[in-house]
Amino acid sequence: MSRLGSQSTYRGRYNEPVPTSNIMEDDADLPEFEPFDDDDVTLSEATPRGPAPGGGTLSVCVVDMCQPINKPNHQTVGYDIQNLVVRRGLEFLVRITFNRPLSGGDDFQLEFLIGANPSASKGSMVVVTFGSRQGGAWAGRVVENEGASVLVGVTPTPDAIVGKFRTYVAVVAARGMQRTRRDQSTDVYVLFNAWCPDAVFVPDEAARREYVLNDYGVIYQGEATAISQRSWMYGQFEKGILDACIYILDVSRMPIYNRGNIIQLVRKGSAMLNSQDDNGVLVGNWSDDFSMGTSPTLWTGSVNILLKYVNGGVPVCFAQCWVFAGVFNTFLRCLGIPARVITNFSSAHDNTGNLKTDLIFKPDGSPDKRHTRDSIWNYHCWNEVFMTRPDLPAGLGGWQVVDSTPQETSDGHFRCGPASVAAIKEGLLCHPFDAGFCFAEVNSDVVFLKRDRYGTLTPFRVDSTHVGQAVYTKAIGSDTPFNITQTYKHREGSAQDRQTMDRAEEYGCARDHSELPESQLSVIMNSDKANLGQDINLLVDFQNQGDTPRTVQAHLCGSVNFYTGVEANRFKDYSFSVTVPPSQSERVVVRITPQEYLPQLGSQLSLHFVVTGQALDQSVSAIKVVNLQTPPLHLMVSGRPQVQQEMFVTVSFTNPFNFVLENVHLALEGPGLMHYRTRHYNVISPQATISWQEAFMPRMQGPRRLIAALDCNNLRQVSGIADIMIDA
Amino acid sequence: MSRLGSQSTYRGRYNEPVPTSNIMEDDADLPEFEPFDDDDVTLSEATPRGPAPGGGTLSVCVVDMCQPINKPNHQTVGYDIQNLVVRRGLEFLVRITFNRPLSGGDDFQLEFLIGANPSASKGSMVVVTFGSRQGGAWAGRVVENEGASVLVGVTPTPDAIVGKFRTYVAVVAARGMQRTRRDQSTDVYVLFNAWCPDAVFVPDEAARREYVLNDYGVIYQGEATAISQRSWMYGQFEKGILDACIYILDVSRMPIYNRGNIIQLVRKGSAMLNSQDDNGVLVGNWSDDFSMGTSPTLWTGSVNILLKYVNGGVPVCFAQCWVFAGVFNTFLRCLGIPARVITNFSSAHDNTGNLKTDLIFKPDGSPDKRHTRDSIWNYHCWNEVFMTRPDLPAGLGGWQVVDSTPQETSDGHFRCGPASVAAIKEGLLCHPFDAGFCFAEVNSDVVFLKRDRYGTLTPFRVDSTHVGQAVYTKAIGSDTPFNITQTYKHREGSAQDRQTMDRAEEYGCARDHSELPESQLSVIMNSDKANLGQDINLLVDFQNQGDTPRTVQAHLCGSVNFYTGVEANRFKDYSFSVTVPPSQSERVVVRITPQEYLPQLGSQLSLHFVVTGQALDQSVSAIKVVNLQTPPLHLMVSGRPQVQQEMFVTVSFTNPFNFVLENVHLALEGPGLMHYRTRHYNVISPQATISWQEAFMPRMQGPRRLIAALDCNNLRQVSGIADIMIDA
Repeated sequence: MSRLGSQSTYRGRYNEPVPTSNIMEDDADLPEFEPFDDDDVTLSEATPRGPAPGGGTLSVCVVDMCQPINKPNHQTVGYDIQNLVVRRGLEFLVRITFNRPLSGGDDFQLEFLIGANPSASKGSMVVVTFGSRQGGAWAGRVVENEGASVLVGVTPTPDAIVGKFRTYVAVVAARGMQRTRRDQSTDVYVLFNAWCPDAVFVPDEAARREYVLNDYGVIYQGEATAISQRSWMYGQFEKGILDACIYILDVSRMPIYNRGNIIQLVRKGSAMLNSQDDNGVLVGNWSDDFSMGTSPTLWTGSVNILLKYVNGGVPVCFAQCWVFAGVFNTFLRCLGIPARVITNFSSAHDNTGNLKTDLIFKPDGSPDKRHTRDSIWNYHCWNEVFMTRPDLPAGLGGWQVVDSTPQETSDGHFRCGPASVAAIKEGLLCHPFDAGFCFAEVNSDVVFLKRDRYGTLTPFRVDSTHVGQAVYTKAIGSDTPFNITQTYKHREGSAQDRQTMDRAEEYGCARDHSELPESQLSVIMNSDKANLGQDINLLVDFQNQGDTPRTVQAHLCGSVNFYTGVEANRFKDYSFSVTVPPSQSERVVVRITPQEYLPQLGSQLSLHFVVTGQALDQSVSAIKVVNLQTPPLHLMVSGRPQVQQEMFVTVSFTNPFNFVLENVHLALEGPGLMHYRTRHYNVISPQATISWQEAFMPRMQGPRRLIAALDCNNLRQVSGIADIMIDA
Repeated sequence: MSRLGSQSTYRGRYNEPVPTSNIMEDDADLPEFEPFDDDDVTLSEATPRGPAPGGGTLSVCVVDMCQPINKPNHQTVGYDIQNLVVRRGLEFLVRITFNRPLSGGDDFQLEFLIGANPSASKGSMVVVTFGSRQGGAWAGRVVENEGASVLVGVTPTPDAIVGKFRTYVAVVAARGMQRTRRDQSTDVYVLFNAWCPDAVFVPDEAARREYVLNDYGVIYQGEATAISQRSWMYGQFEKGILDACIYILDVSRMPIYNRGNIIQLVRKGSAMLNSQDDNGVLVGNWSDDFSMGTSPTLWTGSVNILLKYVNGGVPVCFAQCWVFAGVFNTFLRCLGIPARVITNFSSAHDNTGNLKTDLIFKPDGSPDKRHTRDSIWNYHCWNEVFMTRPDLPAGLGGWQVVDSTPQETSDGHFRCGPASVAAIKEGLLCHPFDAGFCFAEVNSDVVFLKRDRYGTLTPFRVDSTHVGQAVYTKAIGSDTPFNITQTYKHREGSAQDRQTMDRAEEYGCARDHSELPESQLSVIMNSDKANLGQDINLLVDFQNQGDTPRTVQAHLCGSVNFYTGVEANRFKDYSFSVTVPPSQSERVVVRITPQEYLPQLGSQLSLHFVVTGQALDQSVSAIKVVNLQTPPLHLMVSGRPQVQQEMFVTVSFTNPFNFVLENVHLALEGPGLMHYRTRHYNVISPQATISWQEAFMPRMQGPRRLIAALDCNNLRQVSGIADIMIDA
C-alpha cells in the first residue's frame, strides 16, 4: 500500500494529515487578508468602522532579515545560501519598514510558519507579538523605532522546530489581519544551537568550533597498532547542503512537529543515511564490485554525495562505514548538532545480542570459515552526538553513539542510537536506544572454539581484550588521533570494569563462562610496518610457562580479508613445529612475500594471519591483522592564497608497482575552495607518473584543506591532502 | 534496492547470508554420509577398518516422534497439525528403531536444525548426545532400551530458538557420520513455554489456560460508562495457523538466530501485524469506505485473516485497532506466549510525544476542528504479553504493552513495545521500548484552549482525569470485564500518582503547567443509555460554586465521530443561556432525536457532544461521548453437542429500522467448531427478519463458542454468540 494511499484510509484518524515536509506551495499558505471570525459577534461593536487609527491604514513596505548583523551573531556566515540561517534560543533581528510611522493604536505581529497546515499548539506556527498582547512562545521586543522603520528582536525558544520557516508580518486592521505576501527571500532556517541553553549546548568554544563549525576532518582506519588516516570534507556550509539535509528529513516523512526533538531527529537521521527500508541516502556495498557506482574509497567528502542524492532522488552508490559516518557527520553539523566521527578498532559484529564473538576452528587448527558466523571488523566508524538526555536518569547525557551503517543483525533495525557513551561505560544497558548493541561492539569476548568431527563445539580460548582495542577520534584543532577508549570502557581488569561487565550481564548480555583448561603455553604474533608490494615479516612468539619443554604442532593461515574480517582469498597454509624450553619463549619468523599475497589482493589491503598451536592437551591461538600501506598521492598548491583569487593545485602520483594500473579514477575537492572534480586515466604504466592540474578560487578564509583520492580495481585507499591558509 | 540485491553487495560482510526463514529445500541440508574431516590425520590409526563393532553396521529404521505421549505433556493437543509441537524447556520423547540392538561400541546422536546453514554456535543446529561424549546445549538421555528400539528424551533449553526444526538421527560409523534422510514428518515445532522456567513462565495454571490455551475471548469497546463487548475467535490451534505465524516471521526476515528471544520476537511481531513498511498482515482503514476489502467490523476472528495473508501473500484489507489486537493475540498465543487483549477507554493519541492533548475552541465556544491536531480515541485496544525483562532493572517484568496498530505519531515507528506496565505505573519512562508513548495514552492531560482572532492560544481548562479513564481486559475463565486500571496508574490524586507524574516529567514528558483563573463555575454532561434509532436525553448540569448568581452563555455542539475522536459530520449547533443561583446547580435537558443524527450517521455509532459556557471571565467545558447500542444478532444451536457429530446453528436478525438495509454481509465461525463462513443479503426490508442455517461438526471438546457478525454500510458493530459445551 502506498503511503499516499494510507492518507485516504486514515480519514477517521486526523483532521488534517500530519505535515512532514518543509516544501510549501506558495499559494497554500495563510490568506493575505483574514477577516476576524468573531467580527459580527463582538468586534463590530468595539471598533469604529472609519479609517483605522494612526493616520491611514498601516501597511508593510519592506521586511529585511538583517543578514549582515544576524549571521555573525549566529555563527552562520559560512553557509553558502541566500536566506538567513539562525540558531534557536538566540535573538535575531528583523527590520520592518511600514508606509508610515507607528502610532499608539497600531498593532502588528510576526508569524513564522513551517510545513503544511501550521499549528500554534504544535509549534509549527509561531505568532510573535511586540506589545502587551499575548503571542506565542517565541519572545519579541522592539529594539529600535525610527520613523516608519522598526527594528524588532525575535528569540526562538530553545526547543523550537528545526527547519525552514516562512516569515509573515501581519497588521491588525479593523475587520481582520492584513498580511504580507509570501516572500521566499524572508524564509529563515532555524538550527540547533550549541552556544545557548539548548539540548545540544557545548560549554567550550574550541569544542563548538570543532564539532559544529569545522567543515573538514580526519577519519581513522587501518588497525589499532598502525592507524592510517583519511581526510574527509564534511562541507556542511557548501551550496545546497543545508537544503539537502532538510530534504532528507522530508523524504523520511518525519512529522514537522517532532523536528525540534534532538533525540528523535538523530535517530531518524541514522535510519535515513542508509538506503534500507526508506530510500535513504547511501547504498552499502561490501563486495569487490563497485562497477554500478562509485567505489567507497574514491569519495573525498560528503558534498557530492548529498547533492547527487537530492538531484537524483535515489540512493547513491556506494558506501562503507566511513562514508556513512562522514555523510552523517555533515548532516548533523549542518543542522547545528555537535558531532564527530569515531573509529573503533577491532569492532565486534556479532550479534545474537550477546557478548560472544565465536571463531570456529577445524580439528587441524585452521579457521573453519564455513561454520563461523561472527566477524570482527578491523575497524568500524560511527558518529557521536553531544546532547542532553532528559529521557534518561541524570549522568547519561553528553556524547551519544549514533550509527548509520546498516546492521543486518539486531532485529532488523537499520538505525542505531542515540546510545549514551556513559551508559555503555557503566554497563547500564537498560536504557534506549541500542546500548546493548554498541556495548557488544567494544566489549565482546572472542571465543575460540574447536569443532569436532561430530559437529560439537568446544571452547579452547577466550580473549577478552581483542575487541574494542582502541577508540579514536580527531583531536580538537588538529589532525592528531585522540584516544577516547576510556570514555567507553574502564581499564581492562579494573574493579570498575568487572562491575560494568557484571551489570551488563544482569541486563541480559550473555557472556562466556566456559571453563578452560589452565594454559601453560601462549602465543603472540607481531609484524613490522608493511608496505604494499614489499615483504612482510611475521614474528610468532611461543611462550612456555611450564617447567617441561613443549613441542608445538603449529599452523599458520594467511588470507586477504575484507576490513569486515570476512575472508576474501586464502594465500597461505603453513604447518610447522617448534620446541619451547621450560619458562622460555621461542620465536619463529615467517616471511611473506608480495608474490604470495599480491595475486590474491583484489581491492583489499588487509591481510589476516591466524596461528594455532597444539602441544598435547594445550591449544593456543593468536590473530594478527596487517594493513598494507599504500603509495602516496602528492598535492602541490600555487597562487596567492586569498579569497576570490585564482589558485592552482597539481595532483601527482607514481605507480610504484611493476604492473599496470587500469581504469584509474581521481577525485579532488576542498570545502570553501573547490567543488568535487574527477579525472580518469585508462592506464598508468609501471613506474609512470601522472600529473593533474586544476584551478580554483577560494570562497572562505582561514585554514582550508584540499583532499584528493585515487582509486582503481587493484589499488584503493590512496589519498592525499594539501593544507592552505587563505587570507581574507 | 531490493533486499535480494543487498545480499550480493554484502559479500564482504558475512561468510553465509544470515538465515531468515523456516522454509528449507529438502536437498540443501546435511549430507546423508558425512566423512570425518580429520579422517586421514588421526582416525585411520585409531579405528579398525573392518566391520564396525556390535555385529554389522548400525542403521536407523524408524524415527517416531511419540505424539500421543508428547502432545498432552506439552499442552499441544489442540494444534490441528500433522507434526509434533512441543514447548521448550520440557523434555519430549523420540523412539528410534535401529536394524539391531545397540551394543557398547555404538554411538549415535540426534540433530535438530532450523533455517539455512544451521550453526551450532548460534543454536540453529543442535546436536544431542546420549552417552559420555559431549553434545550441544539440549540435554539428552536414554529412557528405555529394549531390543532394537531406543526411547530417548530430549530437553530443549529454555532459550531455544522458536520455530520448526528438522530432525535427523546420525550414527557414528567408521569413516564418518551416517544420517537419516530428511523426513518432513519428523519436523518438530518448538514453542515458548509458560509452564516451565522460560522467559514467559506463568506460575498460575488458570492464567496459563486463559492466556495461552484459550482460543476465543472478548474484546471491549464503546465507552467507559457503557462498555460493549465483541467476541473474538483467536483460533490459534486451527489448521494452518501455526505455520502462518512462522510465515509472518519469515516474511519479516527476522534472523533465525534471534527467534528464541521473546523481546525481539514480540517487537518484530508488533511491526509485522500492520502492513506499513514491511508488507505485514493487516491494512489499517479508519475511513468510511471499505469497498476494496472487508469491513473491520465484519471479521469475527483471526483465522480467516491469517489464512488469507498466507495464501494471498499480500496484506489483508481492512483492520482497526481491535482487529490488529485480535490477530496479534492469535500470533502470540499460537507461539506459546501468554497474551491478552486490553482496552483503554479515552485513549490519547497525541502527536508530539508530550503529555498534552490540545483541544482548540473558536472564540464562540465551538470546537475548532481546523486547528485541532490531537485526538482522544473513545477506546484503543492493544495487547499485553507476560514475560521477564532481563534487559531492565528488577521489578519491571510481568505484563508488557505491545501494540501493532500503526501509530503515525512517534518517530515513524510502526511498532510499539514491549513496554513494561509496571514502569508505566511508576513513570519510569527511561527504559525501552516506547514506554513514554504508552504512558501518554493513559495519562495525557486534556488542555482546552481558546484560539483568539490573532491566532494565539490561551488555555482555559485542563482535565487530568479524562484520558485513560479505565483499562479493561477479559477476566480469567469468564466474559466479565476485569478492571486493570490500577496496574497502569496509581489512584488519581494520590501521593504515588503525583510521584509518577513528577518522574515522568523528569524523563522529559512535557506536561501542562498553565496558570488558569480559579473557576467558580463548572459543567458536567450525562446521558441515559442510547439505542440506535431512539431519542437521547443529554443532561447538562451547570454548577455555581460562587456566591453570586451567574448567567451562562452556552453552546452545545453534537457530531458523529469516528471512534478515534475525529469528527465525521456535525448535526447539532445549539446556543442557549442559563442562570445559575449561587451555590446551586441548574440542569438543562437537551433531547436529541433520531431525525437529527440518523442522516449523518454513516457507519459510525459514536456521538460526540461538547458543551462550552461563558459567564463573564469564566469559561467552562465538558465532553460526552454517547455510544449507540445496536440491535442484536441471534444464534440458536441444535443437534448433539459431541465431537465429530453434526450440529446446526441458525443465525437470525430483524431490521428494527424503518429504512432498508442494503448489501448486508454476515459472517460466522467458531474455534474447534466451524471455519469462517459468510452470507450476503442484497436487502433487508424494514422490520423484516432473515434467518441463516449452517451445519458444522465439532473438532474439539469442552466449552466452545460460535461467533457471528452482521455488517452493512449503515449498520456496523452487530454481533452475536452461542456458547456450547461439547462432549468428548
